[in-house]
Amino acid sequence: MEIEVLQKRLSKALNTVSRVAVSTRAGLPILSNVLLRAEKKQLILTATNLEIATVEYVNAEVKKSGTITVPAKLIAEFVSNLPSEETVKLKAKGDKLTISAGKYKSTINGILADDFPELPKIDEVKAVKFSIDTDMFKEAVSEVIIAASNDTTRPALTGVFFNTYEGALYIASTDGYRLADRKFVDDVKSEVKAIIPALALREVMSCLADNMEVVEILVTDSQIRFRMGEVEITSKLIDASFPDYRQLIPKENKATLVLDKAEVSRMTKVAALFARESGGSVICEAKKEENSFSIYAVASEVGENSSDIETEVKADGKVALNSRYLLDAINATTEDRIRFGFSGKLSPVVIQNEKSDEYTHIIMPLKS
Amino acid sequence: MEIEVLQKRLSKALNTVSRVAVSTRAGLPILSNVLLRAEKKQLILTATNLEIATVEYVNAEVKKSGTITVPAKLIAEFVSNLPSEETVKLKAKGDKLTISAGKYKSTINGILADDFPELPKIDEVKAVKFSIDTDMFKEAVSEVIIAASNDTTRPALTGVFFNTYEGALYIASTDGYRLADRKFVDDVKSEVKAIIPALALREVMSCLADNMEVVEILVTDSQIRFRMGEVEITSKLIDASFPDYRQLIPKENKATLVLDKAEVSRMTKVAALFARESGGSVICEAKKEENSFSIYAVASEVGENSSDIETEVKADGKVALNSRYLLDAINATTEDRIRFGFSGKLSPVVIQNEKSDEYTHIIMPLKS
Repeated sequence: MEIEVLQKRLSKALNTVSRVAVSTRAGLPILSNVLLRAEKKQLILTATNLEIATVEYVNAEVKKSGTITVPAKLIAEFVSNLPSEETVKLKAKGDKLTISAGKYKSTINGILADDFPELPKIDEVKAVKFSIDTDMFKEAVSEVIIAASNDTTRPALTGVFFNTYEGALYIASTDGYRLADRKFVDDVKSEVKAIIPALALREVMSCLADNMEVVEILVTDSQIRFRMGEVEITSKLIDASFPDYRQLIPKENKATLVLDKAEVSRMTKVAALFARESGGSVICEAKKEENSFSIYAVASEVGENSSDIETEVKADGKVALNSRYLLDAINATTEDRIRFGFSGKLSPVVIQNEKSDEYTHIIMPLKS
Repeated sequence: MEIEVLQKRLSKALNTVSRVAVSTRAGLPILSNVLLRAEKKQLILTATNLEIATVEYVNAEVKKSGTITVPAKLIAEFVSNLPSEETVKLKAKGDKLTISAGKYKSTINGILADDFPELPKIDEVKAVKFSIDTDMFKEAVSEVIIAASNDTTRPALTGVFFNTYEGALYIASTDGYRLADRKFVDDVKSEVKAIIPALALREVMSCLADNMEVVEILVTDSQIRFRMGEVEITSKLIDASFPDYRQLIPKENKATLVLDKAEVSRMTKVAALFARESGGSVICEAKKEENSFSIYAVASEVGENSSDIETEVKADGKVALNSRYLLDAINATTEDRIRFGFSGKLSPVVIQNEKSDEYTHIIMPLKS
């Protein structure tokens, strides 16, 4: 292998793919390497942790095609420190890669590409395909992924569930204490039921750049592929069944308040300061007679607090919520005002934008 | 105590003083509190960890003078979350402080001010006084403090040594492996020999705001006070003797190279990537015949590297240095080009700005 490539492009690609490379201490050494493959005017960079694989295509002057793998973090840091105006020359000989640019030269010890794990091939014909505007993708995924769990003993809950319902594609996550659901694509013909690891989606999110207009998505029974610009991320699906979450969303609430988003966010933050001893539990209380809504922490050693806002209230109500979950839900809304629906101490609270129904976030109450 | 004060001013002052308050888990609970004292149109906020005390003065409408102490972090966070246009009312009754602003109200449990440690009084008449331009203060202290040690078994080295020499005031730090020395104030009449804890200086640095023109300094035998705008920081001095550091600075070098700062910084970073196994040790080598200077890591498992620049070289030389120390020293210089003076494998390397002699940084060589 012998190629020339612009420092800027190479550095960007190395930074992107090296994120999924595994640290050397755990597992196979070759998983901490990036695979470089030079062929037909292109350098193809690949890294994988066996669950997720990232591939990036870079234009290059290929003098001699070939392959090699080298430690991903080392080459990424080395190249990022080279002057950005330079052309970088890469030359592989056996398991050694020589990199030179102007005054700088280094030889990195690598591993032959033969040992690199085979990447999953996706059946493009059988796959369900759709594409989605990048901004919309970012917004929807960040609204939902916050409710995904970190608890690997319940694998289904560590992912985001892509599922079709009445002709549209929805995405949803739940950790058992809260649930977020968002309409994703309006018109999807084929049925989709796929749980995408939250980690893979976070990786996709961090690859999205301003110059990428759409994200193309291909789903099969066992895999999903995201294509954006020159980057491709392929992930295994989580092999588990997602809870039938639609039945958990209350059909209607006893009362729905319309609240100013900035104000209710501030009230929650202030109450949370006094709720540290009680694990972050705060009380949300609506009073019909006074047309008021307040959030406060239960009596604690450090002191007391209260804050009230006026709003139209159709029924009295009081519910204890985890303040962090409440804040996450409020922050995930996109309009200036939110709907806060509740039905008593034991029923989930429903948070939505004032006008749009596309996003629904529900939070289970705490015992108070 | 009963006062009214602007949210913006109060929040800024609470954030400043609360930084020195100690976390509750260690030591006396009252040290995690901020002392509030209302008197004569002012609110005076004080926090201390017994080594350092920070005081800030805030204009306030004092309806009733008095004192109280409350948990510093809690009140700082509470007030910072209040709307910035509000006037905040503080009312103390016994050991409880009620804070209200618009819709928000809280009562924080505090401790009576009688238990707050007495603050050291500085003898303003006996103290040596000088003042220094804020920008100059920031630049000089940050150039020197990087060489201070964290090793508390050698207390003198954990501070910055303020010392007069030939009519000027210098500041210096050393951790035994490197040393930084900077001319600080040109014309100081009285003799000063004081070791200021690096922590106290870092605290002063983080209090410096753009609207502060000068830092006033008062030094006695046992204490130092920094005054800037409405903030005053008082610290105990370190009671130890600082090494006679001037004798460690080589009077002359076998060869002095003039190098481009950006280039030598980049060369060091690149070499450091290959020097991880050897604890960051890199070789700096000057070759007279080739008029070249290069930095490289010694042969390592991950690979090799080299980078050369052309420069006038009067004598051959080779020295092994810790790459982090070298990078710190290069970054601390302020001109575009630096002088790199060396005298062989066992002699310290001297790094200075190309034109100015005010700053000197020396690094002890490693065995190579």
